[in-house]
Amino acid sequence: MAFSNTSSYLKLQKLAEAPVDLKTVLTPERVHSYLAKSLGLKLFYGTERVSDEVLHALFDLAKESQALEKMTAMQAGEKVNSIHGYPSENRPALHTAMRDVFDKTHEQPEAKKAADLARQEIEKLKKVLPKLDHFTTLVQIGIGGSSLGPEAICDSLGAYHRSGKKVYFVSNVDPDELSAIFKDLDLSKTGVIVVSKSGSTLETLTNETFARSLFLKANVKPEKHFIAVTQKGSPMDSPARYLASFYMWDYVGGRYSVTSMVGGVALSFLIGVDRFLEFLKGAHEMDLLALNPDPRKNLPLLSALLGIWNRNFLNYPTVAIIPYSYALRRFPAHLQQLDMESNGKRIDKLGKSVDFDTGPIIWGEPGTNGQHSFFQLIHQGTTPVPLEILGFKESQYGQDIDVESTFCQEKLLSNLLAQSIALAQGERSDNPNKYFPGNRPNRILLAEHLDPKTMGQILAYYEHKVAFQGFIWNINSFDQEGVQLGKVLALKMMRQFAKKRTSVSESYLLGEAYLKEIF
Amino acid sequence: MAFSNTSSYLKLQKLAEAPVDLKTVLTPERVHSYLAKSLGLKLFYGTERVSDEVLHALFDLAKESQALEKMTAMQAGEKVNSIHGYPSENRPALHTAMRDVFDKTHEQPEAKKAADLARQEIEKLKKVLPKLDHFTTLVQIGIGGSSLGPEAICDSLGAYHRSGKKVYFVSNVDPDELSAIFKDLDLSKTGVIVVSKSGSTLETLTNETFARSLFLKANVKPEKHFIAVTQKGSPMDSPARYLASFYMWDYVGGRYSVTSMVGGVALSFLIGVDRFLEFLKGAHEMDLLALNPDPRKNLPLLSALLGIWNRNFLNYPTVAIIPYSYALRRFPAHLQQLDMESNGKRIDKLGKSVDFDTGPIIWGEPGTNGQHSFFQLIHQGTTPVPLEILGFKESQYGQDIDVESTFCQEKLLSNLLAQSIALAQGERSDNPNKYFPGNRPNRILLAEHLDPKTMGQILAYYEHKVAFQGFIWNINSFDQEGVQLGKVLALKMMRQFAKKRTSVSESYLLGEAYLKEIF
Repeated sequence: MAFSNTSSYLKLQKLAEAPVDLKTVLTPERVHSYLAKSLGLKLFYGTERVSDEVLHALFDLAKESQALEKMTAMQAGEKVNSIHGYPSENRPALHTAMRDVFDKTHEQPEAKKAADLARQEIEKLKKVLPKLDHFTTLVQIGIGGSSLGPEAICDSLGAYHRSGKKVYFVSNVDPDELSAIFKDLDLSKTGVIVVSKSGSTLETLTNETFARSLFLKANVKPEKHFIAVTQKGSPMDSPARYLASFYMWDYVGGRYSVTSMVGGVALSFLIGVDRFLEFLKGAHEMDLLALNPDPRKNLPLLSALLGIWNRNFLNYPTVAIIPYSYALRRFPAHLQQLDMESNGKRIDKLGKSVDFDTGPIIWGEPGTNGQHSFFQLIHQGTTPVPLEILGFKESQYGQDIDVESTFCQEKLLSNLLAQSIALAQGERSDNPNKYFPGNRPNRILLAEHLDPKTMGQILAYYEHKVAFQGFIWNINSFDQEGVQLGKVLALKMMRQFAKKRTSVSESYLLGEAYLKEIF
Repeated sequence: MAFSNTSSYLKLQKLAEAPVDLKTVLTPERVHSYLAKSLGLKLFYGTERVSDEVLHALFDLAKESQALEKMTAMQAGEKVNSIHGYPSENRPALHTAMRDVFDKTHEQPEAKKAADLARQEIEKLKKVLPKLDHFTTLVQIGIGGSSLGPEAICDSLGAYHRSGKKVYFVSNVDPDELSAIFKDLDLSKTGVIVVSKSGSTLETLTNETFARSLFLKANVKPEKHFIAVTQKGSPMDSPARYLASFYMWDYVGGRYSVTSMVGGVALSFLIGVDRFLEFLKGAHEMDLLALNPDPRKNLPLLSALLGIWNRNFLNYPTVAIIPYSYALRRFPAHLQQLDMESNGKRIDKLGKSVDFDTGPIIWGEPGTNGQHSFFQLIHQGTTPVPLEILGFKESQYGQDIDVESTFCQEKLLSNLLAQSIALAQGERSDNPNKYFPGNRPNRILLAEHLDPKTMGQILAYYEHKVAFQGFIWNINSFDQEGVQLGKVLALKMMRQFAKKRTSVSESYLLGEAYLKEIF
């Protein structure tokens, strides 16, 4: 049944006509009761505009849309990446198998086979890592999911980085990116990880060629420094050209690939393989929690439902992800891809145009910095922006100082909580410029400490929140046909550039018009 | 007259009922004629959903709202930062005076005085810089406008950085940020710029205290390493504690302060004072262009009008800023503050609630990376996202490689142009998943080369685009009352933390509820 035809949808539409007024309902009791706890994480959602009635209708919506059954099917390796009746990728989405490497949770053949293969890569990684130990620096060349997620996770665990080890990421075809990053590198101590599933991603191959030319210029042999992460049998699966090759599979989408070797090689180089395994363990724990039928325990399901309330019933077009954590400074950029590429869709799984809004626009920067910046609009602008706030009880480095009776970490948490409350409650004033309308919805995911295991939990929490929303909307969250047209036109445009030097005969008038104005 | 009562508003509302269909109108001729050129910059706007009729109505709107007169008044030093009939900051917004240091354009006493003071600081800077030359590293401590803009501009000019010089920014009160950045620094070669206009910004003072404690621990004298940028007479204006003090003024708002010493000290350390002056020169050129009455020449005015068409008449809630430039990777975060803090307002200059939408939600990441990420939603999502694309004809470093008949910079430009066209034109397909609706509005600002002068132009282009939109909406783009409530509640919350150790008597029940759940 289509999302907008479910009986819960109609009920929720009715309820959205008069959502609770947070200015009056936000009490200490609500803080205590609108709080979900699992795996050491706490999700405070008393500052969302929901009532018990709304929550029950949302839980019914989850049932009606068979959200849990679909999550179970996904983890079991069913072909959830498909559009019925039309050619589609038609394959499983088995990123959860990448971390089902501890106790063999899933015994279905597809999931089990994927987990076995993932384990083989981890064993390979353990053997290859010592060969990378004389490198001080790794540069990962990859784009989209081969860059954003791995970079965000590498950055998030700064206090766990091994001394003297650095990882950089080159993604864009912009030559200045590679130039800037390679400028100060000692190539004799630098390894390069090239990540492309197909082995034919234009940006990645171009940057690899560029990087290899720099190694050759410096008289350093690329084949002793370059590592491939690609699909078995791809043009990049070539032992003569790489120090080592790791495999990835078509059932792990780019934006869901952080826990595969796409993230695993760089992360293990930085924090060691044992901590990488803790990271996988955290993600695996969240995978299991996502199967929990109690929506007050199943944090990603609960978060997905609250998001759907804000998106489809209160009609907010965007969501800001605000980590009160410097370590998570690049995490919103990963979530931007994860969410918007998964759920920025206009057809459902039957190929029909949807008559409701799908994925919102996701963006964000760390608080407290944001408070001195775009929070002005969030408090007093004309378009309310729901917030997903992330925070930690303790700092990661454990260094702190008492200034005017509080420590920095306490100031940070004070700001986090104050914003959540201020946005919900608003404030009256006779001066219209000091009036805050309030009722700006937000929720807080709070963890104890940002360690590898917790990072794995939080990563998978978001992966499953996104998947649950897709399941409920009945869209395909695992393909990305929308990125194809630009690729085709870019190739056409490149042929216009090449025309200057080669004998391309075809002509692209629109492209020519632009080039005439530019050159 | 209120924005929504102008006759142009009504006309534009009518026109918005049937905007042009880009799928049919986008021709080479349109590319040539919907192109504005000034100062070596090119603004391609044929991919916006505008017709000549819409453009004329927008130009009338600019006249009716006296946009140019207000820009002239702003640059002349009139008190544009005010709300009539209510207590307000009630002062000029004279960031343009910071770069009116070449040929004394403005002779009005307020503007002239401000320009003279700005010149004094530049002279001071020339004297102080040699004293910083033995530093390899500067860390700038500041938050909001004292961090985002300066960081974005420092990052943007990587190819011009003096060899061996680095600048880092610490903004958040998160202790992990300072810990991570100071981890590997040689403090004997590190200077610290502390930026706070009031000299009492909580985050900044806390981080300064934290940083000073690290210097003392390392037996390095802070007073020989710390530099103040603050208002004359502030608690930070204390020669005994700082190697040098630079001044800023209340008529330069944080988010408009990049061209003052807030950005000037760090930037001059990185690229040298002569190039900093080129940067100012570029900004000054754009200031003058913003006074040009021809809206087809006045790029910031034209861009402001196109933005208002998208925001108020086509009703799009967000704008994505997509620089096809690694160097501009942090520029969208600066524009996020600049735009959302300036125009995220709910009252007009008479203190009345607006009955139209003000500033949109601004976000963005560099292309081409975004193409492999959130562009899925931009092409096929349910909420169209207007794009402001930025690009450069040449690369900054001048290093490049020919791979399969095109250079990287050509591939980069090909992608930029292809996306602009693909979003506008869309594509038909019998497979609903390969159908692109098109009519996704976007425009391209293209420059020759990302050098200091061009960066100054682009920075001021955005400052004036934002100011023009505020002038047309008749809101105050120069205050930020919306950030105050959170500060007040954060102090209340901090007192709850301090209670554990000190004898605070008052109690904040809501705060206590959260702390009880967390600790």
